[in-house]
Amino acid sequence: MSSVKVVKIGGKIIDDDQILDAFLKDFVSIKEPKILVHGGGAIASKIGKKLGITPNMIEGRRITDEKSLEVITMVYGGLVNKKIVAKLQAFGKNAVGLSGADLNIIPAKKRNPKPVDFGWVGDIDQVNSKWLLNFLNQDITPVLAPLTHDGKGNMLNTNADSIASAASAELAKTNETELIFCFEKPGVMNKEKLITEINLLLYRHLRDIGLITDGMIPKIDLGFQALKNGVKTVSIRSFKSVSKITSGTQLIT
Amino acid sequence: MSSVKVVKIGGKIIDDDQILDAFLKDFVSIKEPKILVHGGGAIASKIGKKLGITPNMIEGRRITDEKSLEVITMVYGGLVNKKIVAKLQAFGKNAVGLSGADLNIIPAKKRNPKPVDFGWVGDIDQVNSKWLLNFLNQDITPVLAPLTHDGKGNMLNTNADSIASAASAELAKTNETELIFCFEKPGVMNKEKLITEINLLLYRHLRDIGLITDGMIPKIDLGFQALKNGVKTVSIRSFKSVSKITSGTQLIT
Repeated sequence: MSSVKVVKIGGKIIDDDQILDAFLKDFVSIKEPKILVHGGGAIASKIGKKLGITPNMIEGRRITDEKSLEVITMVYGGLVNKKIVAKLQAFGKNAVGLSGADLNIIPAKKRNPKPVDFGWVGDIDQVNSKWLLNFLNQDITPVLAPLTHDGKGNMLNTNADSIASAASAELAKTNETELIFCFEKPGVMNKEKLITEINLLLYRHLRDIGLITDGMIPKIDLGFQALKNGVKTVSIRSFKSVSKITSGTQLIT
Repeated sequence: MSSVKVVKIGGKIIDDDQILDAFLKDFVSIKEPKILVHGGGAIASKIGKKLGITPNMIEGRRITDEKSLEVITMVYGGLVNKKIVAKLQAFGKNAVGLSGADLNIIPAKKRNPKPVDFGWVGDIDQVNSKWLLNFLNQDITPVLAPLTHDGKGNMLNTNADSIASAASAELAKTNETELIFCFEKPGVMNKEKLITEINLLLYRHLRDIGLITDGMIPKIDLGFQALKNGVKTVSIRSFKSVSKITSGTQLIT
């Protein structure tokens, strides 16, 4: 096994069964060994709301209290993860759904409650790639939910982009690795125009003038971090073109 | 690896965190390779009710409609399964949580809708033991949720006792296997008295005179089926004595 792809998909792909099916069919057509990392925010919020759990927010950021952690564990680890695995099986790709607790793949630390207590949020300690490589070597696709664990019996809520970046960096130690962030736009946009290549200097400039904002900032930061940690190729692109060799925005050094 | 234990736990153990912790600590002390199969009924009903999903019943039996299947997939595959795996990790036992879709471990068929349509309920086609044995050989405990899949992209609700019986029968083809059903009583009871050994003749007699009733009937049937299929030892016992060598009610031929 030489090269490995780590593909991350977000909530808008997962929330729509037709989009998810189209994405997964395209994903299955990738010949290289591959790992899928998923988020799942919108469904968790919807189900949490129905259960009467109002998200606590501090400075615009969500707090993972005990009840929210239960919802996230159910929705990310159960509903979304198993739906994707069952669909991959139907599309002819053997797959295994994993949280960070399974096989101790992603041990993490509960985030320091100072200065802000975000609750049951985990910062990744390490990614144990032994079993990921075991599965990939036997033509099985690991499907990672955005959940880690603290080794003390608690699950932790962990950002899916962070998991994708950390997993690809770990795999890069043994294999040529590509990291692909898939979302609903063609890539990083300068207003209507797709930016096909971006380096740190251009990124900082576009961020400083307010053209790259919000959730795209940590995503690009994590992408550059993966590049720095030895991942060979990092791109941000549309979920419609996961199997295309070049597409979207390439992050370059 | 010579002998394997398959242990099944039901809802009353899972619903109480203190009981679950005590059970898992005892379970971890078992030296032999072991698989844990869990149910999870009460939590699923509670969460379903909060979500406004009223269980449809036909002839006293629950129908798994689409909404119920979502709840079951979330609760069994996510909340309960990951909670158990995280706790096992904390107690020093590496574990992996699996539904029947993961690694295609338990393909199933949606039950024939005639004469009664029970909805998204799966009857087990087979148990693929290759990966179970792989994990056991590397000192990892598989934790099986009562979920299978139809190979067409759908999860299916499958009785945990049936999964435990089928998994142990499959493992018995290659390894000496013991099946243990754990629940809240000391074993099969004749009023206040524990029956330490039961064979088919005694079972049928006690059933016919109404001393063995309800959920105990399919459990014992599945236990005898496992014995018939080559499982060496089958017992029904208290969750307080999973690690004891002899305990509860032994099923004998």
